[in-house]
Amino acid sequence: MMSDVAESESPECLVRFVNNESAVAVARGSTILDAARKAGVFIDSLCGGDGVCGKCRVIVREGKVKGGRAESLTAEEIRQGNVLACETQVDSDLVVEVPVAVSLREQIPEGGRPRRRLYEMATRERQPSKLEPLVRKVHLRVSKPSLENNAADLERLEYALRETLKSDNEYQMGLKVIRTLPDVLRRAEGSVTATVGYRGRLSEITEVTPGDTSARSLGVAVDVGTTTIVAHLVDLAVGQTLESALMYNSQAAYGADVIRRIIWCSSNPGGLGKIHEITVEDINQLIHELEEKFHLSINDIDLVVAVGNTTMMHFLLGINPEWIRREPYCGVTYQPPAFRASEVGLTINARGLLYCLPSVGSFVGADITAGVLATGMNESDDLRMLIDIGTNGEVVIGNREWLVCASASAGPAFEGAGNRDGMRATHGAIDHIRGWSRSRTFGYSTVGDKPPIGLCGTAYVDLLAELLHMGVMDKTGRFDFSNGSSRLRRGPDGTAEYVVVYAGEKGAPRDLVITEDDCSNLIRAKAAIYAAAKLLLRSLGLTFANLKEIMVAGAFGNYLDLENAVLIGLLPDLPAEKLRFAGNTSIAGAKIAMLSCDRYREAQRIAQRMTYFELSTAPSFMEEFSSACFFPHTNIEEFPSVMARFANK
Amino acid sequence: MMSDVAESESPECLVRFVNNESAVAVARGSTILDAARKAGVFIDSLCGGDGVCGKCRVIVREGKVKGGRAESLTAEEIRQGNVLACETQVDSDLVVEVPVAVSLREQIPEGGRPRRRLYEMATRERQPSKLEPLVRKVHLRVSKPSLENNAADLERLEYALRETLKSDNEYQMGLKVIRTLPDVLRRAEGSVTATVGYRGRLSEITEVTPGDTSARSLGVAVDVGTTTIVAHLVDLAVGQTLESALMYNSQAAYGADVIRRIIWCSSNPGGLGKIHEITVEDINQLIHELEEKFHLSINDIDLVVAVGNTTMMHFLLGINPEWIRREPYCGVTYQPPAFRASEVGLTINARGLLYCLPSVGSFVGADITAGVLATGMNESDDLRMLIDIGTNGEVVIGNREWLVCASASAGPAFEGAGNRDGMRATHGAIDHIRGWSRSRTFGYSTVGDKPPIGLCGTAYVDLLAELLHMGVMDKTGRFDFSNGSSRLRRGPDGTAEYVVVYAGEKGAPRDLVITEDDCSNLIRAKAAIYAAAKLLLRSLGLTFANLKEIMVAGAFGNYLDLENAVLIGLLPDLPAEKLRFAGNTSIAGAKIAMLSCDRYREAQRIAQRMTYFELSTAPSFMEEFSSACFFPHTNIEEFPSVMARFANK
Repeated sequence: MMSDVAESESPECLVRFVNNESAVAVARGSTILDAARKAGVFIDSLCGGDGVCGKCRVIVREGKVKGGRAESLTAEEIRQGNVLACETQVDSDLVVEVPVAVSLREQIPEGGRPRRRLYEMATRERQPSKLEPLVRKVHLRVSKPSLENNAADLERLEYALRETLKSDNEYQMGLKVIRTLPDVLRRAEGSVTATVGYRGRLSEITEVTPGDTSARSLGVAVDVGTTTIVAHLVDLAVGQTLESALMYNSQAAYGADVIRRIIWCSSNPGGLGKIHEITVEDINQLIHELEEKFHLSINDIDLVVAVGNTTMMHFLLGINPEWIRREPYCGVTYQPPAFRASEVGLTINARGLLYCLPSVGSFVGADITAGVLATGMNESDDLRMLIDIGTNGEVVIGNREWLVCASASAGPAFEGAGNRDGMRATHGAIDHIRGWSRSRTFGYSTVGDKPPIGLCGTAYVDLLAELLHMGVMDKTGRFDFSNGSSRLRRGPDGTAEYVVVYAGEKGAPRDLVITEDDCSNLIRAKAAIYAAAKLLLRSLGLTFANLKEIMVAGAFGNYLDLENAVLIGLLPDLPAEKLRFAGNTSIAGAKIAMLSCDRYREAQRIAQRMTYFELSTAPSFMEEFSSACFFPHTNIEEFPSVMARFANK
Repeated sequence: MMSDVAESESPECLVRFVNNESAVAVARGSTILDAARKAGVFIDSLCGGDGVCGKCRVIVREGKVKGGRAESLTAEEIRQGNVLACETQVDSDLVVEVPVAVSLREQIPEGGRPRRRLYEMATRERQPSKLEPLVRKVHLRVSKPSLENNAADLERLEYALRETLKSDNEYQMGLKVIRTLPDVLRRAEGSVTATVGYRGRLSEITEVTPGDTSARSLGVAVDVGTTTIVAHLVDLAVGQTLESALMYNSQAAYGADVIRRIIWCSSNPGGLGKIHEITVEDINQLIHELEEKFHLSINDIDLVVAVGNTTMMHFLLGINPEWIRREPYCGVTYQPPAFRASEVGLTINARGLLYCLPSVGSFVGADITAGVLATGMNESDDLRMLIDIGTNGEVVIGNREWLVCASASAGPAFEGAGNRDGMRATHGAIDHIRGWSRSRTFGYSTVGDKPPIGLCGTAYVDLLAELLHMGVMDKTGRFDFSNGSSRLRRGPDGTAEYVVVYAGEKGAPRDLVITEDDCSNLIRAKAAIYAAAKLLLRSLGLTFANLKEIMVAGAFGNYLDLENAVLIGLLPDLPAEKLRFAGNTSIAGAKIAMLSCDRYREAQRIAQRMTYFELSTAPSFMEEFSSACFFPHTNIEEFPSVMARFANK
């Protein structure tokens, strides 16, 4: 080792990010992306660090770097110091600026893309030793038969597969595929690609095609929410998310919640068939959108992994959920096996497979199993809580020893549905509002930087906090006309409403408002979730203080202002470091399981070992709920930091 | 213990059978059927000893019995001393006569029923600890859901199944069946019957029906021979054969042997589809016959287990066998997984399964695997040989350590096909000929005691021996007109022929003859089989003397006169105790596998460990074959007992 290394040759470099004033030491030669991750600075990186998406551009203000001048940058951008963070190596101490557009992308759920979680998922799953998708394409060289070894075509293929995968799998193959074998093997002179699906103790060879098509293998993860359906297109060959799409669940025409839909289903002839059909149509529409963006044919998609609450899984599969709503609340299956996706009606490869992640029980679905899988709380030594905010709010508490969960009906308010100007987190949705005490108008951002056309869930959390803070809304959620706000008014039907954006502002097509009824929906939603979390803890003899961490998940957009969520009493008043926003853990878990048979089995174990605690029969639930129907809470002592804040005002 | 037991109270009784003059000691209280089995006297017992078929009637000439006067006997029969052997207990020393009709049934392959083997199979498989059919119906009581245990319907069903079967199986279930679950479970209040099919490391629940229908579970074993198709209907609930049916294989229209049919298949557009279709139609016709006899619906039959040579398995499954006939002689699959029988076109329960037993290679099929399984030679310490006489003659040599096999094309002569008055072993077929040296006419029996209309394989063996012995035919298979037999003549086309039965004799509709061409077919068939057996031994450095036993199997009728078979040189000249007729081991093996998942796996292991020896490339095969084209053999020293016999004549 040389002892006279010059300072510029120091093996460690300090990288300072001007955005959050953080600085980290990294080894010389690390990428700026590595440094940003270490510093907790989010940089959008769609491709996960392959240098192809061009989204991770940063500006090097001071210091020396190597590489990073990718084709996707213009000459002007390069002059300004722009580089791609994933391709640029640190070569001295640096000062780096992450342009707002890039760092904000993390927070902008464009098309519902939960960037941060995706990234975590991608890095976790992209280890070659781990990447073992539920359906995967494997390129094989099947030996030619000879007089010495004239084993049959199928047996030679299976031998090649076992050798290639180094496994002792037992294979199953449909007759249709077997019939293609002699031609396919001989046409390609033994160079073929086998598509292999996980079937528990067996594997199914679903297709054999000539040549090496293993690089072209795609899967779709679908989170079938009661209100919103989200689909992610995943490149199975490298374990990476390519794109996402979302839409409202068309089932809403038959009831806002699962119980009403089940009732509709049973009381209308052909009801189950109808609701099954529209569910499948919705998913097919999302799949079609994803296919179009990437110029894919339906044959390119080999699997769908679905999550959602138990009723959604029943609807998707066309299984009667009638008994879910009747005591003793019993579904038909919580651990469905894999099915041929085409049998359900999904328009992917006709031989492709559909996996529904396992549910815990009739009211805790596969989305929660996926959430636990995504957070890894089932392997944690410490006690953690997962709160998943959807049309049903679900709460899970546990660690590697035990897992307990509960569910409470929250309604779709935080998904933007049911509110006057609510919308899902897609282009034109106001997703974040900032205007705290500076003026009586708001600063806000919209998804895709498009003209504002509505508000999504995260905006409502910010807005409620804002209205409370300004005194426009009181702690019961009623508007205070004595406050003097010019934005308060009565709508055509006499309902009190507050104008968030006036027509014409930034291209808004009309006034966007929040009504007192919206506030009422939102207060009940947040109260149900808070009450569920508190009561579940209490039933275990615990309090929020016993938790190492609360992870907040939801399909209602990617970034949630946790401080505002505490202020309105959606989340308990814990120190900031104990609260973590985890994004859409349902879809993340679906993708983790999709990319790893081991993780899929882990999901099955999670569902089996989780204990369900029924809140509806707990006598104190209504009491807890009523106390929580207040901003932040009737018992303000539970929210000391909020109390202090309002006291200071 | 009392020492003064009177003689009539002796715990052992001697039962003497007048038929074969054998006598055995049995415990008092044993049934006559038990005694007959011990004495080696065959008594037809279709029901396997349940007293329901009424076929095992015997006459007690002397001594005391208990029971046995079943309803199926007439008053007159009872007066004559008739009892049912299976229901009658020995109560003193007895003299018993087995009526010819009953003892002969053993030898009469009515409808191809190989009685003795069936019986052995039934006793082997009827042990409750062993009876685990590939598809079985299991009656379950699925617990009702409660608030304490509201596991989903499928999970409660699987739990009940695991408890009932005491297994840790993993189950697979089709979506169609899952969709029926909530109704079926509630309609029957949890008392349901699950149909469970073996799928290797998984089990498939193929159907769930209300109530207990487990007693009504049937399977069909099919031996798809090149020339003859045999089907057996098996009661899976008790492991017992109910009935059999057989027919010629309609594929014969496309060629007499597999190679010609494969060529037809490849050289005619749609050829494979056509030949697949007629194969399935043939089997469906047999299944339909069996169903009609027992007033079954197609839903009662839950599985089909098929055996046959490798090409037949390909045709049955609609898989192209083209590469079987081309060097290096390679099939598409020798170990096909289970398929939905309806996918193949078989008209059984739409959810029923089809299992093809595994083949060894392109020219040694599932029928041989089944034969080894049926004989158990794969578990024997001693070296045994199995000779299966069909359109292809197959020879297996081995023990628990190793198994080697070879195949030789014999032609269908021993299946009655291709000979002028040949026919399969069904009603009206002459099956045995006895007239040895007593007169120049023959005594013969026909299947079902019907008027003679043709000759089946076993009759040809007897007939050739007879003609040789009478000097009507010389050792090359040519007729000797100088012999003076009035039955020798020239047919309309000038071919030499010998009249076996004149028109009108016992109701024969026309003269039944054997021609010199028939003799030529037969001599080549027996020569191919003998040459294969000898050459395979020689290639292992062995001779017939090294064998503990030769088992002769065939679908050509149940009973083969082994002495005559040696005399014509079909079998080697070994002491009688070393030659055993084993019946149709193909169908027996199919049924053994059908009734036991363990045995099915054993069949897979047998197929995997058997080594194929290719005779067609062995230079000395033609030489051996030519030497064997002589009655009994060119080298008469190989047949010392035959030599002695002819010398004494």
